[in-house]
Amino acid sequence: MKPVKLGLLGLGTVGGGVVNLLERNRDEIGRRAGREIEVVHAATRHPDRARSCSIEGIRVSTDPMAVVDDPETEIIIELIGGETAARELIERAIDQGKHVVTANKELIAKAGNEIFGKARDRGVTLGFEAAVAGGIPIIKAVREGLVGNRIEWLAGIINGTANFILSEMFYNGREFGDVLAEAQRLGYAEADPSFDVDGIDAAHKLTILASIAFGIPLQYDRVYMEGIGHISRDDVAYAQELGFRIKHLGICRRNDSGLGLRVHPTLVPERQLLASVDGVMNAVMVNGDALGPTLYYGAGAGAEPTASAVVADLVDVVREFTLEPENRVPYLAFQSHALSHEVALPMEDVETAYYLRLLARDKPGVLAEVARLLAEEGISIEAIIQKQPEPGASEVPVIILTHRVREWLMNRACERIEALEAIEGSAVRIRVETLGS
Amino acid sequence: MKPVKLGLLGLGTVGGGVVNLLERNRDEIGRRAGREIEVVHAATRHPDRARSCSIEGIRVSTDPMAVVDDPETEIIIELIGGETAARELIERAIDQGKHVVTANKELIAKAGNEIFGKARDRGVTLGFEAAVAGGIPIIKAVREGLVGNRIEWLAGIINGTANFILSEMFYNGREFGDVLAEAQRLGYAEADPSFDVDGIDAAHKLTILASIAFGIPLQYDRVYMEGIGHISRDDVAYAQELGFRIKHLGICRRNDSGLGLRVHPTLVPERQLLASVDGVMNAVMVNGDALGPTLYYGAGAGAEPTASAVVADLVDVVREFTLEPENRVPYLAFQSHALSHEVALPMEDVETAYYLRLLARDKPGVLAEVARLLAEEGISIEAIIQKQPEPGASEVPVIILTHRVREWLMNRACERIEALEAIEGSAVRIRVETLGS
Repeated sequence: MKPVKLGLLGLGTVGGGVVNLLERNRDEIGRRAGREIEVVHAATRHPDRARSCSIEGIRVSTDPMAVVDDPETEIIIELIGGETAARELIERAIDQGKHVVTANKELIAKAGNEIFGKARDRGVTLGFEAAVAGGIPIIKAVREGLVGNRIEWLAGIINGTANFILSEMFYNGREFGDVLAEAQRLGYAEADPSFDVDGIDAAHKLTILASIAFGIPLQYDRVYMEGIGHISRDDVAYAQELGFRIKHLGICRRNDSGLGLRVHPTLVPERQLLASVDGVMNAVMVNGDALGPTLYYGAGAGAEPTASAVVADLVDVVREFTLEPENRVPYLAFQSHALSHEVALPMEDVETAYYLRLLARDKPGVLAEVARLLAEEGISIEAIIQKQPEPGASEVPVIILTHRVREWLMNRACERIEALEAIEGSAVRIRVETLGS
Repeated sequence: MKPVKLGLLGLGTVGGGVVNLLERNRDEIGRRAGREIEVVHAATRHPDRARSCSIEGIRVSTDPMAVVDDPETEIIIELIGGETAARELIERAIDQGKHVVTANKELIAKAGNEIFGKARDRGVTLGFEAAVAGGIPIIKAVREGLVGNRIEWLAGIINGTANFILSEMFYNGREFGDVLAEAQRLGYAEADPSFDVDGIDAAHKLTILASIAFGIPLQYDRVYMEGIGHISRDDVAYAQELGFRIKHLGICRRNDSGLGLRVHPTLVPERQLLASVDGVMNAVMVNGDALGPTLYYGAGAGAEPTASAVVADLVDVVREFTLEPENRVPYLAFQSHALSHEVALPMEDVETAYYLRLLARDKPGVLAEVARLLAEEGISIEAIIQKQPEPGASEVPVIILTHRVREWLMNRACERIEALEAIEGSAVRIRVETLGS
C-alpha cells in the first residue's frame, strides 16, 4: 500500500516531536497501522532556525496555506496554536476534503461546534486527542472505551504547571510565588503564567472533556474558573492535617438541577489516587454508571507525549479513510443530532463541600457563633478546628469542613460570617470533593 | 438504521450485566453508536433459574449452538468461559462470518493464535477488551492510544482477589490464610482459589497484554508464574519499613537478552501510583518510549464493569461492519504478518532487583559472610538490615535489598547462602521493581 502523506503546520517543539516519532518508530508504527505514514510538506515561520528534528525529505514552506493547498497532502496536522490563523487553515483543509489532526485545545473549546459542523458537512475526520492531557489517550477512553456508560462525573488534573506548583508547596512547604518563579526559570510556566495558574488552559480541556462525556455542545463560556494564586502553604498544611491534598481540578458533575463545569483548587482525600498525582503529571478520573471510578494517568505535555497522541489520531484517521462517516466515532462522542441542549449551571447552583479558613479573635463564643450562622443557612459541619494563635498574635485560625452545599448558600453564609465583629478579614474558601459516588 | 442483533452465550453474572446495561443505557448508547443494539437470542443451561436481568423479548435456548446458528444473530457474545465448548462456539460463529465479542481470557491466552487466524481468514472481528482488567479500556489504550510508541515495559495489578488479600495484609496486619478465608466467604475468591492466588488468571491476562504491547504471538506457556501464598505479614511490614508495598504484578519487560513475561509478588516503591491501588481494583502501568509512564485504573471484575467492556467492543464491531478488514485494528495490535517470532526468555535470564529475608544465628560475622557471597556472584547490595531477635529467639531476621541481577545468579547465590551454617532454613525471596525507566 502506498504511504499516507501528511502536511504539518508548525515545526516547533511538538511539530519536531511528531517528525522525530514518525521517523524513529517508522517500523513499529507501520507494523501496527499496516502502512507507512510520512510528512511530505511542513510549514514554519522560521525555516532557518535550528530545530529538534531532521527535515530531510520534507518540503518546507513559510506559508502554511501552501501546505494545506498542496495536492499531495492527505491529512493536515495543525500545531500552530492560537485561534485565528489556525482556524482559517483547518477550515481550508476541511473545505478541500482533507482530514485534520490538531492539538489546539483553545480553538476546539471555543470554536469546535462550528468547526465540527463544517467537518461533518464535508465528511472529514478531525482528531484532537493531543488537545487534552497530552499523551494520555483520554479522549479515546471516554469516547470509545466507556461508550456503554452514562458518565456520572469526571475530575482531572489537566494542567501540569499548576500541579507542579501545588506539589512543591506540599512537599517542600514553599509559597506559591516562590515556586512559580522557579517553574518559569525551568520553562514549565510561560512568562505570562495566567493560562496555567488561573485555570484558562484547564478550562479549555475541561470544556472538551465535558462534551464528550455528557453529550453536550462545547460551552467554554459556561466554565467557572478559579486559579491557585490565593492558595497559601498554610492551607496546604491544614488540608494535610485533615487528611486531604489540594489539587487544581477540572470537574464536571451533575446534581439535581443540572451539570456544573468548573476549574478550581480542590481538597481531595489523600487516599484517592488523584491525590498522589504529583509534579507535572496529569490524570483524569471518570466515573461511569457501569464501570464505576476509573483513572487515566500520564504526561500531560511535552514534545514526545503530545506527538504520541497526534500519531494515535493519525493512525485512526488512516484506518477510517474508507469508512462511511456515519460509522466513524463521532467528534464529540455522541452523534451530532443526539447532542443534548443542556446548558451548564451557573456556579451559584453548583454543590460542593467546603474548606473554610477564618481568622478569629481569640475569645470565647466565636466558634459557637460561626457554627450557628452556618446552621441557619442549612450548612452541616463535618469538622471544625481551632488552631493555637501564632506567638504574639491575638487572632487564631479556625478551619471548618462542611458537607455539600449550594454555592449561593455558602456565599450568603460567608458574607454573614465575615460581618461578625470577632472575624478578621475574609474567609479563605476552597472546595472539597471526596470523589466518591 | 435497523438495530444490530446479538446472540448471547451465557446468562450468568456477566451475561445478565450485558443485558441490563444495554437496556438501561439504550438511549445513551444509541446516541453514541448511531444505532440500536439488542440481544435477540440468548443461551443458558438453566432457563428456569432466577436471574439478575429481564429476558423479555429475548429468545432463550438451552443449546448455545442454536444461538450461533440463528440466522438473525449478527454478533455473538461468548460469556460461557472455559476452553472446549467456548472455542467450538466461537469457531462456529467465525465460520458463519459472524463477529465475536468475548470475555474469555483463558481461551484467548491459550488458543488465541489459532482463533485469530481463523477470524482473519474469514474477515471477522473478534473483540476481547473484557478479557483483561475488566472494564478498564486497557486493550484499546495500548492497541490504539499508544500506537505511536515502542512499549518498553508494562506492569499491572490484574487480579483483584490477590490485590484484596495483599491490601488486607498491609492495612490490617493479617496473615494470608486468614484473609483468603474471608475473601472466600465474601465471594471474591473461588472455593479453589488457585486461579487467583497462584497467578494463573493474571498469567492469562499478561499473555494478552504482552502480545499487544510487543507484537509477539500469544505465549501463555512461557509466562513465569508465582503466587502470593508464601508472603507473610512480616515481609509486608519489612517492605513498608524500606518504603515499599508488596503487590502481585504481571510484568513484561525487555532486557539485553530479550523479553521476560512473569507474574509474581513484587516490592513496589510506595510513591508509585501502583502501590496505592488497593482492594479489588486493577491498574496497569505502561511505559512507552514517547509517552513515558501511563497508568490505567479501574474495576477489574464484576458484572457491570465487565459488561462495560463488552459493550465498548460491540460498538467498535458495529462501526467496523463496513470497514475492509485490512483497515481494522489488528487483533493483536500489530498486523498478523508483522508479529515478531521472538520467544519470551526463560526466567533464569530475567533480571530484577531482590528483597531477601534470611534467618541468621545472632553471632558476629554473619552479615559479612552473606555480603561476601553476594559480592562473589556480582550482586550489589542496596540495603541490608539486621532486626532485633524476637524475645527468647536465638535467630535474627536479616533483610537485604539488592540491585538488578539475573535470576540464575541469584539462584546460585541463595543456594550458597542457605548452605551457610549460620543461616536457618531457606531465604524468602521477593522481586523488586522500581517501575522507573
